[in-house]
Amino acid sequence: MGRLSELFAPETVGVIGATEREGAVGRAILENLHQEFVGEVVPINPSHETVLGLEAYPDVASAPPLDLAVVVVPPPAVLETIREIGEVGTQHVVVITAGFAESGGEGARREAELREIAAEYDLNVVGPNSLGVMSTPVSMNATFGPESARDGSISFMSQSGAFITAVLDWANEQGIGFQDVVSLGNKTILDETDFVREWGEDPETDVIIGYLEDIDAGDEFIRTAREVTEETPIVLVKSGRTDAGAQAASSHTGAIAGSERAYEAGLEQAGVIRASSVQELFDAARALSGLPAPESDGVAVVTNAGGPGVLTTDAVGDSTLGMADFTDETIDKLQEAMPDEANVYNPIDAIGDADIDRFGRALEIALADPNVGSAVVVSAPTAVIKYDKLAEVVIEKRQDFEKPIVTSLMGGDRARAAETVLREFGIPNYFDPARAVSGLNALARYRDVGQRTSDEPAAFDVDRERAREILERVERRDDNRLGIESMALLDAYGIPTPPGEIVDDPARAREVAEAIEGDVVMKIVSPDITHKSDIGGVKIGVSDDEVYDAYEDVVARARNYQPDATILGVQVQAMLDLEGTTETIVGVNRDPQFGPLLLFGLGGIFVEILEDTSVRVAPIGENAAREMVDEIRAAPLLRGARGREPADVDAIVETIQRLSQLVTDFPAILELDVNPLVAGPEGVQAIDLRLTVDTEELS
Amino acid sequence: MGRLSELFAPETVGVIGATEREGAVGRAILENLHQEFVGEVVPINPSHETVLGLEAYPDVASAPPLDLAVVVVPPPAVLETIREIGEVGTQHVVVITAGFAESGGEGARREAELREIAAEYDLNVVGPNSLGVMSTPVSMNATFGPESARDGSISFMSQSGAFITAVLDWANEQGIGFQDVVSLGNKTILDETDFVREWGEDPETDVIIGYLEDIDAGDEFIRTAREVTEETPIVLVKSGRTDAGAQAASSHTGAIAGSERAYEAGLEQAGVIRASSVQELFDAARALSGLPAPESDGVAVVTNAGGPGVLTTDAVGDSTLGMADFTDETIDKLQEAMPDEANVYNPIDAIGDADIDRFGRALEIALADPNVGSAVVVSAPTAVIKYDKLAEVVIEKRQDFEKPIVTSLMGGDRARAAETVLREFGIPNYFDPARAVSGLNALARYRDVGQRTSDEPAAFDVDRERAREILERVERRDDNRLGIESMALLDAYGIPTPPGEIVDDPARAREVAEAIEGDVVMKIVSPDITHKSDIGGVKIGVSDDEVYDAYEDVVARARNYQPDATILGVQVQAMLDLEGTTETIVGVNRDPQFGPLLLFGLGGIFVEILEDTSVRVAPIGENAAREMVDEIRAAPLLRGARGREPADVDAIVETIQRLSQLVTDFPAILELDVNPLVAGPEGVQAIDLRLTVDTEELS
Repeated sequence: MGRLSELFAPETVGVIGATEREGAVGRAILENLHQEFVGEVVPINPSHETVLGLEAYPDVASAPPLDLAVVVVPPPAVLETIREIGEVGTQHVVVITAGFAESGGEGARREAELREIAAEYDLNVVGPNSLGVMSTPVSMNATFGPESARDGSISFMSQSGAFITAVLDWANEQGIGFQDVVSLGNKTILDETDFVREWGEDPETDVIIGYLEDIDAGDEFIRTAREVTEETPIVLVKSGRTDAGAQAASSHTGAIAGSERAYEAGLEQAGVIRASSVQELFDAARALSGLPAPESDGVAVVTNAGGPGVLTTDAVGDSTLGMADFTDETIDKLQEAMPDEANVYNPIDAIGDADIDRFGRALEIALADPNVGSAVVVSAPTAVIKYDKLAEVVIEKRQDFEKPIVTSLMGGDRARAAETVLREFGIPNYFDPARAVSGLNALARYRDVGQRTSDEPAAFDVDRERAREILERVERRDDNRLGIESMALLDAYGIPTPPGEIVDDPARAREVAEAIEGDVVMKIVSPDITHKSDIGGVKIGVSDDEVYDAYEDVVARARNYQPDATILGVQVQAMLDLEGTTETIVGVNRDPQFGPLLLFGLGGIFVEILEDTSVRVAPIGENAAREMVDEIRAAPLLRGARGREPADVDAIVETIQRLSQLVTDFPAILELDVNPLVAGPEGVQAIDLRLTVDTEELS
Repeated sequence: MGRLSELFAPETVGVIGATEREGAVGRAILENLHQEFVGEVVPINPSHETVLGLEAYPDVASAPPLDLAVVVVPPPAVLETIREIGEVGTQHVVVITAGFAESGGEGARREAELREIAAEYDLNVVGPNSLGVMSTPVSMNATFGPESARDGSISFMSQSGAFITAVLDWANEQGIGFQDVVSLGNKTILDETDFVREWGEDPETDVIIGYLEDIDAGDEFIRTAREVTEETPIVLVKSGRTDAGAQAASSHTGAIAGSERAYEAGLEQAGVIRASSVQELFDAARALSGLPAPESDGVAVVTNAGGPGVLTTDAVGDSTLGMADFTDETIDKLQEAMPDEANVYNPIDAIGDADIDRFGRALEIALADPNVGSAVVVSAPTAVIKYDKLAEVVIEKRQDFEKPIVTSLMGGDRARAAETVLREFGIPNYFDPARAVSGLNALARYRDVGQRTSDEPAAFDVDRERAREILERVERRDDNRLGIESMALLDAYGIPTPPGEIVDDPARAREVAEAIEGDVVMKIVSPDITHKSDIGGVKIGVSDDEVYDAYEDVVARARNYQPDATILGVQVQAMLDLEGTTETIVGVNRDPQFGPLLLFGLGGIFVEILEDTSVRVAPIGENAAREMVDEIRAAPLLRGARGREPADVDAIVETIQRLSQLVTDFPAILELDVNPLVAGPEGVQAIDLRLTVDTEELS
């Protein structure tokens, strides 16, 4: 494949299917290209010698060499056209034509063939079903949309072409500019991960933004984005967050509905800042494209307007930031500089008669405070404040201090000129102070992404072969579900289980029980019996003397319940002292996009009724495992709330990591539940296990 | 007092303190008034015969009769001026001058005196420390702000003058118009309740909006707003939601920090729609001022843009609304009217080449569906869609169907003309589809307010006199806290308590125990001993034979723990069978603004760690009490989740109501906790009680 950067910097662009026909897409693209593109535009049309005054060629073979080919021929002609493009050695192709997988049947077959041809010629293909691509450094608008992008440092991808046209007119008016824009279309070859990687290497791209309806390969995306976000922030709208939205996305682009929780966890692990609306996306992008991240969370609010100042403070309270505590020195200086009626505590209210000097002085004193990481300047129109002058002061202070400043110079027309000046210095102005704070918050979130410490998954010393043997047993069975008979799997991966074993005669049961201190728990082991307790298949507190009879009894009850049940034996297990322990659950599900999804929560009502769980995409390191424990609402119970002795949280964290390793080592494990994992002050014990195995993956 | 409506429709307005001095507030107001006001403007200034060309008078007494007096004299002169105003019989006064309670000391004393003078002359006073008032029907701008409001049907109050100036310029640009605008200032006489009441009676006001930092008398506000919202929606930003914000509000206007939970509950009970930002406030106001409420929650989304359609669907998923399920007939009609590639299921994607006709037809078919209560029209710019034409179609369909429609014609300049036309027909256009849905959601929330059924507090037959006697006992004690010795209080209000009594000798204890079936629980009763269990002051499962000794023992332990403790006796109580029951808590706190605040939750970790509680301002009716039980996250536990027998929720609901009646009857009860109130399938039992009483209020 050619370097993707060349896709956005071609010298010669061919439009295959260019036409003069009014209203045709092939005309719109040619016009858009022709108007501004710094390179050469080559129309390809078999029946005309010129198109819109440009010399045309009958086919790709006879045209000058193309760096980029834009394909707008009818669906049945696309494949042959792309083959011709491949033959002449052009590496970058944008397929505008629709009628592929999104229309099913014949289209899906066509898309499969497109994939093969692209592989054969090693082509970089955007689309099909794409609006096209833009790149402002070469003034290229190779789309059929009605607007061109303004210059800027935001690179923008969208799985919806309409999303691009919908925002461009507005963005132009707002003065928001772009570097590259790409309409991803069906993502047959190039997808979000490719562009994230490309823009991550592009020094001209300050921020990557996108609208996505699905992510094709979640694990690869996470790895790539994690690396890219060390240098370049990524802000994404991933739609289909709600059930209704996911259904709509699926009928729109055929997006497979991965679970929202997987996207939430995966995007967070990837270091992506997620926006839930167009406005949030651009509010964040505007701040990220022009300002440094704050070094600390303390925000100073400087205003001439009491009420809006309070509102701003509320917005700070809602964010992950906090109001800065001013030092005594700051307070003293402010008291000296401000009139008595002013409020010198944060938010600084310089009051309504504040002129530019007083405003500027307040801002300067605030920014000089070591507890202040960033500032929000909020102003209402007054007779003594001219917004353009205020903008100048803000820009001056922005340059004097390496701290981000956002503004909310409230007003309509009145704020326009100031907004333009501020924008030139990377300072976004927002009408609503709450949005200004949200812009600042995006900066802080990106700083946190940058400050991630390495969290490589640990490689525990485990008995992988033994685990494989246990999993392979399933092949000799009727179904693919395993239960407590596979507890040794946990043992192989170093996860504590109570002493005991599965036996198949009562005498052996007694021997095992005698080797265990105290009473034992006995459970029927049968893949056919799910609710063991309900049928009397579980005995608790069995003494050595009772073991023999108990064995006979649980087996008899199981046989009685289901005569043809496969009975693998009876588990004889040490009975734990549950006093002072807490039941937890660690589970794994496999997500179609992101792969194994780890889940942690407290047992019983906490998971089932309160839905108090945390989720991560495996594999994870220790930090992420610890976050999983910390972020459930009931976490204080494990930490020793209400006079309880704290549980051994380290042991839980290690267990989560070991399970992460297990499900990463064995993609055949589709689902797995350790329920309960009993956690007490002395450590954890896995009491019960269920898993589902993909037998084909195993063999 | 004169009718408040006259404040906004004066024929003659006097400006006391009018001046020609550049930059003076007294000049700004006179200029604002002079420019547009349809009535007469009278400057009052002792040293000039004319001010800005208007005939001036030396004092109020010599001026023509004033319907409204605007006071801008220096602080020390305000009181005398207001007395003069009272003397000549003017009833409406706006005090612009600051330097009252907000500046403490002398100012506070001045404000107290202002209150007295206003009462003496029965004056309607706005302020002091007010920006002024506006009323567009008479083109009155009696403020010193830089902007006048446009005509409209929104009436707007603000506790921050700067908030008004901050939004007016923007609102004018957005085409948002107002009826009356009032800057509340210090709210010494007239407050939010007065204006809510006034505008509720004003047929020209379609929506009441406001920015508030506190609410003076919460109970009166709730009563008034509840009535007003039957006819007129109220949307409020109440700032100081967060701790930081509350602190900022307090230093801004001296707002007493009532608890956010009380405001949340109180505003909800008042039927107020609460907004958390300027944008949310106006997004809601724009929808409410021009559109009817939807009759049902089903939303139809009609778009030419797949991605934005999915985003809109997500926003619907986030709201209290839902995507409408189209009838088969609708689907058939859509299939007939749309091309094959279109999506005819909701969201309807008429796809990018949809022209006005197809768009209009889709909208029409959707609106005709009985499952559709409202519609969102979302459009991206395309070659075939002209927004002004699309606006016409939307207006036509809006008129054909009595269903609200909001639009998101996405774009900048391109959407401007369409926006103006739509606005004339009451249809708000929003750039961001998520905001369009939020506007629609405000309509639905207001509809729900209107559909409230009467929820009058029940008047249970209780023994109020006995309750009073029990509460009065506290007067004879050292502190004002009562405990289980007051369980009879609950009995007097019909709240079940286990059989038993407090006895003061062991023989009587045995008699009581013998009269109770089964074992008993015995507890030391002493106001000085809070943690009875910890000192061995509680005995559980005491049989009749053990009662005598148990009595001696708990008393001895109490004496041993604290020799000088007041011991009121020992409670002998039936021991409940707790099997299958759930511990709940019903509590009451008194909020400075809203009065008694009822709290409900499950006991232990649910309240203490998960903070899973619901709150209402007392008194409440049965519906509200039931909502309190339903809205805690753990509610399914009471409803019989996980195979449990459901608790007697009706009994819980009744207990909450009876406690509501108790704390309403006795304002002397400052705090009260029934903890636990044990709830089982057979009913509830209050096991323990603590309360704090205001002895002065009692006497």
